[in-house]
Amino acid sequence: MSAIHELGLVETANAIADGSITSEAATRTALDRLERLGPDYNAVMALDREGALAAARAVDVARAKGEDIGLIGGVPLAHKDLLYRAGRVCTGGSIIRRDFVPDTTASVLERLDGAGALDLGTLHLAEFAMSPTGFNAHYGHGRSPWNRDYGSGGSSSGSGAAVAARLVSGALGSDTGGSIRHPSAMCGVTGLKPTHGLVPLYGAMPLAPSLDTIGPLTRSAVDAARMLSVIAGPDVRDAATLSAPERDYEQGLTGDLRGVTIAVPQGYYRTTADAEILKLMDESLAVLREAGVRVVETTVPDMGTINALMQVVMTAEAAALHRKWLAERPEDYGAQVRARIIPGYALAATRYVEALMMRAEVARDWLKCAMDGADMVHVPTLAAPVPSIAETTEGSPEDIAIAIGRVTHCTRGISYLGLPSLSVPCGFTKNGLPAAFQLVGRPYGEPVLLRAGDAYQRRTDFHTRLPPGCGED
Amino acid sequence: MSAIHELGLVETANAIADGSITSEAATRTALDRLERLGPDYNAVMALDREGALAAARAVDVARAKGEDIGLIGGVPLAHKDLLYRAGRVCTGGSIIRRDFVPDTTASVLERLDGAGALDLGTLHLAEFAMSPTGFNAHYGHGRSPWNRDYGSGGSSSGSGAAVAARLVSGALGSDTGGSIRHPSAMCGVTGLKPTHGLVPLYGAMPLAPSLDTIGPLTRSAVDAARMLSVIAGPDVRDAATLSAPERDYEQGLTGDLRGVTIAVPQGYYRTTADAEILKLMDESLAVLREAGVRVVETTVPDMGTINALMQVVMTAEAAALHRKWLAERPEDYGAQVRARIIPGYALAATRYVEALMMRAEVARDWLKCAMDGADMVHVPTLAAPVPSIAETTEGSPEDIAIAIGRVTHCTRGISYLGLPSLSVPCGFTKNGLPAAFQLVGRPYGEPVLLRAGDAYQRRTDFHTRLPPGCGED
Repeated sequence: MSAIHELGLVETANAIADGSITSEAATRTALDRLERLGPDYNAVMALDREGALAAARAVDVARAKGEDIGLIGGVPLAHKDLLYRAGRVCTGGSIIRRDFVPDTTASVLERLDGAGALDLGTLHLAEFAMSPTGFNAHYGHGRSPWNRDYGSGGSSSGSGAAVAARLVSGALGSDTGGSIRHPSAMCGVTGLKPTHGLVPLYGAMPLAPSLDTIGPLTRSAVDAARMLSVIAGPDVRDAATLSAPERDYEQGLTGDLRGVTIAVPQGYYRTTADAEILKLMDESLAVLREAGVRVVETTVPDMGTINALMQVVMTAEAAALHRKWLAERPEDYGAQVRARIIPGYALAATRYVEALMMRAEVARDWLKCAMDGADMVHVPTLAAPVPSIAETTEGSPEDIAIAIGRVTHCTRGISYLGLPSLSVPCGFTKNGLPAAFQLVGRPYGEPVLLRAGDAYQRRTDFHTRLPPGCGED
Repeated sequence: MSAIHELGLVETANAIADGSITSEAATRTALDRLERLGPDYNAVMALDREGALAAARAVDVARAKGEDIGLIGGVPLAHKDLLYRAGRVCTGGSIIRRDFVPDTTASVLERLDGAGALDLGTLHLAEFAMSPTGFNAHYGHGRSPWNRDYGSGGSSSGSGAAVAARLVSGALGSDTGGSIRHPSAMCGVTGLKPTHGLVPLYGAMPLAPSLDTIGPLTRSAVDAARMLSVIAGPDVRDAATLSAPERDYEQGLTGDLRGVTIAVPQGYYRTTADAEILKLMDESLAVLREAGVRVVETTVPDMGTINALMQVVMTAEAAALHRKWLAERPEDYGAQVRARIIPGYALAATRYVEALMMRAEVARDWLKCAMDGADMVHVPTLAAPVPSIAETTEGSPEDIAIAIGRVTHCTRGISYLGLPSLSVPCGFTKNGLPAAFQLVGRPYGEPVLLRAGDAYQRRTDFHTRLPPGCGED
């Protein structure tokens, strides 16, 4: 059998369930790696070694007694540090919340607990979940396991790095404008931003609730499907989820994509893309064709408008949520984060109301135009190679803004549209960093996205590659 | 048996179902009265005599064949002219929409159709549903059946007058800040503003969707319960209703209120109330005590803040919805309505976001304070006698603003809180106009409100009194 840290999430769950390994052994391996390698990527905020080991032993005892240990029974996980667990510090990447201890537990953590998963601790993120590169003025840069001069992507930086470096087999992140997809693409892991309203937000630090989503970062689409099956579905504490389906997302992952049509929109997502990214996109489409996919060309509506609407919604909600702290403790915000929030105070209420009221119709138009009857849309996650930390922090403010804007170019519009998107690693650019495509679906279209992502991964090995130095136990 | 027009909604439904009267006879009576008396109160926008009579005859044929004709089978109704019916003009009280023909039908009309009700035509309302008195600069004043120098109340003016004058036995209205409760109180009928999100808004002209509700104006609580049973409950086309219950609201109307506690908050609702209103409130509480109610005194939180939050939400949403028309056709708005919308353009997005984000907590606080464990709150619907049309349209702008502010004093805060409220007529003031109390409940607390309203009406006859000149057929 592979070394423990080489097992994916479903593989680990199976190995614990059938007794090939103990939860304690898996947990000890994960804790050791988080402690040893985690600091290299600045991936970890805090660990609970003793609590995790005790919980692991309890799973092993339960299994020995023949009890049902759950869908992810005994599997060691760790998550972005913006999900509340009652009694545990949750920083949200901010020094204002350095000692904040919530008295409630996030619905998604409760659901993972219910499925037997272990929660080893909290992972690094951008300040208040507000940077696409992994930058955090207070807790330091999230760094890529592939090259520490590059960011791990934000805002779910630690989740991306920890899964890429095989510290844990799965981690939750959150995505408001790309914060699951950026670290997934930049670290070379699989990331699912679910349909807005599919996964409950209760107990997660909000950035902009109309856009916020919570989803898994894992090695493979199969692993993402397992986590999504556990965390998705209606929750009375999040009204937006009340009409969400409950599903087993592993069903239908057959590897066969005959009958599936993928739309490749021309224009916005490709015109500014680097040539080497476009080449990787075409190669990934060739693989999907082999699996049975029919590929069609479509167009996209004006993304400038859609991005502007996204900006209005995000900035207004963030500004409202931060008003008190920004007034009382402006110096406790990083300059970049403060600069992102402040424009929200100048926005007219009517512009915000309009942005929300137009949303359903804009999404229908986008789907009609970009998807045009296909099952999903295939676009890059990042239209350029992963930028170095220097490119996104040094130089003129204009250059930095351009470098950061390129990171969110393909992701933020999808957030306004509320659509699901699966980011899948599909090779490496000349700088040695990973690249990825996004599969964007209809509302609640996760099953066909996961089916396509899985079929792609059955035919490629990009998602199995280990960053340098992450191989040994 | 009583004359046809003297029958309430449930009585009419029963009489048609058991063959004592035909739907055609009931419909002919209603049409004749709408044509003959409707203009006196400016209650009617448009009637469909031939269509209604054909539909009535079809119900009579179906009944003769022994078919199920539905819960309101063959009962002639008419509704506020802001509910869309595909192919029929819907003015919304505006001249901009004088010729607007929607291509969809409101969910509530579809549900009434499904229960066998007949839709005779459209009733008068304030311009864009935006006046509490029945004022409409384009279509004239809605006038009270009790005295044509007084308004019928707004914005569901025609619904209030038509039910009070026994033109129809029930009519839908809409309530954003009091627009069902004002005409109910001013015309002496029973009006139910449901919990926000209980009755679907799909296909209703919006004023401020976060506050808008649709509900029945009827003679009695029993009739309101029948209509609510038909129109309430989840609708996929209105996400806010997805967790709403489905119920038979006539169950539990036993006349017995033992075990029910009613809270009477001191302060805001009483300090500015007229002495003769307070006397009527106390008399109504005495009747409720006879029915078994325990009455307790409570307090209310600062209503100035709650009213301001309501104003932010309403004005921002109305301003956004009217932006295009106000820019292109400002002269097609009445001056009062234009003046109500325009402040919305100066509002900051963050203030609106905050008003929505604070809503659940403010409602919890209000319930804790004003209801304090009781089953409902008892307050006046109008804290002063019904004002004359002259008082709300002539004199200085300040005097008019004060007169209009008194009309909404007790209603608009409840709209922000999203709570259900049943307005019940409870006597007459010295000017000969009706007075009413509101029973305000918890979210989805309609059953106990209707039970209390019905028990009160079993012991009083205010809801059975006919305005002068409305007795003869």
